[in-house]
Amino acid sequence: MSAHIGVTGLAVMGANLARNFARNGYTVALHNRSVAKTDALLQAHGDEGDFIRTESLQELVDNLQKPRRVLIMVKAGKPVDSVIEQLVPLLEEGDIVIDAGNSHYEDTRRREASLAEKGLHFVGIGVSGGEEGALLGPSIMPGGSRESYDSLGPMLEKISAKYDGEPCCRWIGTDGAGHFVKMVHNGIEYADMQVIGEAYDLLRTGAGLEPQQQAEIFTAWNKTELSSFLIEITAEVLAHTDVKTGKPFVDVVVDSAGQKGTGRWTVVSALELGSPVSGIAESVFARGLSSQRGQRAIAQDVLTGHEEDVEVPQSFVEDVRQALFASKLVSYAQGIDMLGSAAGEYGWELKLDEIASLWRAGCIIRAELLDDIMKAYAGDSKPENLLFAPAFAEAIGAAVPAWRRVVATAVQLGIPVPVFSSSLAYYDGLRRKRLPAALTQGLRDLFGAHTYGRTDAEGTFHTLWSGDKSEVEAVDTH
Amino acid sequence: MSAHIGVTGLAVMGANLARNFARNGYTVALHNRSVAKTDALLQAHGDEGDFIRTESLQELVDNLQKPRRVLIMVKAGKPVDSVIEQLVPLLEEGDIVIDAGNSHYEDTRRREASLAEKGLHFVGIGVSGGEEGALLGPSIMPGGSRESYDSLGPMLEKISAKYDGEPCCRWIGTDGAGHFVKMVHNGIEYADMQVIGEAYDLLRTGAGLEPQQQAEIFTAWNKTELSSFLIEITAEVLAHTDVKTGKPFVDVVVDSAGQKGTGRWTVVSALELGSPVSGIAESVFARGLSSQRGQRAIAQDVLTGHEEDVEVPQSFVEDVRQALFASKLVSYAQGIDMLGSAAGEYGWELKLDEIASLWRAGCIIRAELLDDIMKAYAGDSKPENLLFAPAFAEAIGAAVPAWRRVVATAVQLGIPVPVFSSSLAYYDGLRRKRLPAALTQGLRDLFGAHTYGRTDAEGTFHTLWSGDKSEVEAVDTH
Repeated sequence: MSAHIGVTGLAVMGANLARNFARNGYTVALHNRSVAKTDALLQAHGDEGDFIRTESLQELVDNLQKPRRVLIMVKAGKPVDSVIEQLVPLLEEGDIVIDAGNSHYEDTRRREASLAEKGLHFVGIGVSGGEEGALLGPSIMPGGSRESYDSLGPMLEKISAKYDGEPCCRWIGTDGAGHFVKMVHNGIEYADMQVIGEAYDLLRTGAGLEPQQQAEIFTAWNKTELSSFLIEITAEVLAHTDVKTGKPFVDVVVDSAGQKGTGRWTVVSALELGSPVSGIAESVFARGLSSQRGQRAIAQDVLTGHEEDVEVPQSFVEDVRQALFASKLVSYAQGIDMLGSAAGEYGWELKLDEIASLWRAGCIIRAELLDDIMKAYAGDSKPENLLFAPAFAEAIGAAVPAWRRVVATAVQLGIPVPVFSSSLAYYDGLRRKRLPAALTQGLRDLFGAHTYGRTDAEGTFHTLWSGDKSEVEAVDTH
Repeated sequence: MSAHIGVTGLAVMGANLARNFARNGYTVALHNRSVAKTDALLQAHGDEGDFIRTESLQELVDNLQKPRRVLIMVKAGKPVDSVIEQLVPLLEEGDIVIDAGNSHYEDTRRREASLAEKGLHFVGIGVSGGEEGALLGPSIMPGGSRESYDSLGPMLEKISAKYDGEPCCRWIGTDGAGHFVKMVHNGIEYADMQVIGEAYDLLRTGAGLEPQQQAEIFTAWNKTELSSFLIEITAEVLAHTDVKTGKPFVDVVVDSAGQKGTGRWTVVSALELGSPVSGIAESVFARGLSSQRGQRAIAQDVLTGHEEDVEVPQSFVEDVRQALFASKLVSYAQGIDMLGSAAGEYGWELKLDEIASLWRAGCIIRAELLDDIMKAYAGDSKPENLLFAPAFAEAIGAAVPAWRRVVATAVQLGIPVPVFSSSLAYYDGLRRKRLPAALTQGLRDLFGAHTYGRTDAEGTFHTLWSGDKSEVEAVDTH
C-alpha cells in the first residue's frame, strides 16, 4: 500500500488536514520531526482512515505514489525552506511539493521558480477556516502550475468546504497566486472584524446597549444582507458570560488586538501596487494602536475629549447596521481592487468570480454577500470596481444617508470609527468630480519642479514659480 | 591644489550641492558620466568658487585630499550600487563615500556594512529642500559612523540651512539613520500637503471661497501657529492665475497627485515597526485614489452621494484652521512615534529634539511648530507621544471642538477628508478607555484559538468555544 499524499508537520493544522484527507478516503503518509506527535495523532485518530506512519522524510517519500505529493505544514519562513531543502534531493521530476502554511507570496514565487528549475512542482496553497475548517472542510486557494492542479486539484476539492455542493477550491493562478489571494482574504478579514468592533462600540457607547442585548441584535442582523460567519460568532462572543466574574466576557478581555502579519502584508503589497486599501490599513493600525498600552494609559489622563452632547437618532441601531454594511462593502471592494492590480503586476489571470465563489464557505469571511460578489463578476461585463456593479451601487447608495449620520454622530460623541470614516472618505473621494490633488500637484511643482498635467491639453507642464510665472512644457526627469 | 570633496552625478541636485560647497569656500572636484554636464556646470557657474574638472572616477579620486570624501548624487537604486562598485577599488582605508540621494535606508544599511568591511566609511545623508535648498542651504540628515561625521560634519553644517544661526544638520545615527529620518520627513510632508488640500476643499465646497479669496486666508493663517513653508506656498499657488485661460491655476491642473515612493516607504516601514501612522497612510492612499482616473470617471456616474443640506457654521473658516492644525499635529506625532520605534529596532540613539531642530529651516516641512517640537523633546522628561507634551496636549485639546464640527460637516456634505477624520479617530482611539479590540480578541480566540489576556489576571487564556465554554490557561503556539 502506498499513500496518495504525505503530510509533514503535524501540529494542529497539519494533523487536521491529514485527517481530512484520510476521512475522504485517501491514504495519508505521516511525518513529523518528533515521532511523538505522529504517534499521538495515530493513537487518537488512527481509525479515521488509512495512515502510514513514517519516521523520516526518506521513509515518507518512499511510501508515496508517483508523482509524489508532499504537503508541508510548518511555520512560515525559514522552517519551510529548511524542509524543502531536505525534501528536494529525495524527489523525482514531476513530484509535487505543497506548502499549505501562511507563507508570503513572494517566498512562494521564489520557491516555485527554484523548484521548477529542478523539474519539481511547488504549489503554495492558501487554507482558510482555522483548525475546524482544516478538519471539516476549509476554503482552499492553490497556486502553482496549472499542470500540478490536474493531479492535485481533485484531492483538494474533495477535502474542501462545499457551497451548494460546489467545492470551495479552484486553481487560482501560477506561482504565488494562491498565497496572495489568501493574504488578501486575511486583509479583508481584518477590516471585517474592525467594522464589527466599531458597530459594537457605537451601540454600546452611543445607544447604551449591553453585550447581551447586542447579541440579540447581531443574531437578527445575521438574517439580513450582513449574514456571515463573523456576525454569527460576534453574537456568540457577546452573549458569553465570563465564568469567573459573572461579567460580560467581552468586558474581561484585554482590549489589545494581536496580529500575525497577514494584514500588514496585505497593506504593504497594496502600497507597492498603488491600490488604495485604506479600510484594511486602518484596521491594521487600529490593532497597533490598541497594543500601545503605555501611551493609551497616559492619553486617558492628558488628552481631553470635548465630546458633544448629541442625541442619538431613533434610527440609530438600523443606521449602524447600514453603515456597517456599507463599510464592509468598501473593504471588499478595496481588497478586490488590489487583486486586479496584482493580476496585472504578476501576470496572473485571476478570475474574480471564482475567487469570490470559493470564499462562500469554509473560510473566516464566508458571507452571503460573497454569492452576490461572485455573480457581479460572473458575466461578461466585469465592473471596474465592485461598487460599480449595479446591485452594489444601489445597495451602498441606499445606505449612504445612514452612513453619514452614524459617522457624524460618532465624531461628535468621540467614538473612534477609523474604518467607518475612512471607507466613507474613500467612497466620497472616488465619486468626487474634482479632488484637491490638483493643489498638491501645484505645491509639488513649486517646491520640487515635479510638473503637472493640464485639464485642457496633453503633455506635462511646469510653471516658472521663481521667475515670471509663465508656463513651460516640461519633461519630468525626476 | 587638491579638493576637499568630490561630487559625481551632476544633474540639478548634484550640481547645486557642488556649487553650494564651492560658494562656501571648499574646493570641489567634479565628475559626471558624460563630461558635457561637467563642462556646462563649469561654464555657467565656474566662477562661483574653486572647481576641479575631471573626466573619470580615477581622476576624481586622484584629486582629493585624504581622507577622501566622494559624494554620489545619482538615481536611487542600482545606479548607486554601480557607482560604489566602480569607486571602491580606487579608495583607501578611512575614505568616505557619501550617498546624498533618496536611497532606501535598508539599502544604506547594506552598503554601510559592506563598505565597513573594506575599511571605508559609507554615509547616507538625507537632503531636503529641493533644488533651491541644495544650492542655498538644505536641511541635512547624515547617517553613517560617528567617526565619519568628525571629518564630514563641519562641511555639511557649513552648507546647510541655518535657523537663528544654528546649522540644520546634525549627526542622526549610525548606518541608515539619516536616510530613515529623511524618509519619515517625506511621509510627514505627504500628510502635511493632504491636510492642506482637505482644508482647501472644505473652504471651497463648504464655504464657497474661491482660490483667490483662499490665498488671502492662507496668507493670514501663515501668521498663526500654522506658519510654515507649505502654507506660504499654498497661498502662492492659490493666488496664481493661469495665463492661458485666465482661470484660477488650481482649476486647470489635473487632479491626480504623483508620488515617487518615499511616502509609501514610510508607511511600509511603519507597518513593519507596528507604529500606527494612519494619517500618513491615508495621504498616500489619497494620492493613489486620485490617480485611478478610469474608476473615478465611472464612480461619478454610478455612485450617489445623498449629501445632506447642512448649514455651514459661522465659525467655519476658523474651525477649518483649527482642524487643520490638529490633524497636522497628529501627523507629526505619528511620524515621531515611528522614529521612536525605529530607534529601538535598529539600535539608533535618535535625538528627537535635534531632529526637530534641523527640520526648522531648509526643508519642505519647515514650520514654526518645529521649534516647539524641539523644545518638547529638549528637556529631561521626553513625552511618550508628541501630543502628551503639555503645550501640545493643551493646543490640540483647544482645537477638538472645531475639529469635530468640521469632520461632521464634511461627512454630511460629502467632502472626503480622509486625514482629518483618520487623525481624529487616532486621537479618540488613543484616549479611549476601552477599545473594541477586546471583541476582536474574542472573535480571534473563537475561530482560531489565538488566545487572549484578562484584565484581572496575568497569563494567556482560551475559551473552549465548541466545548462547555469553560476557560483554560493557554500557551499561544501560533
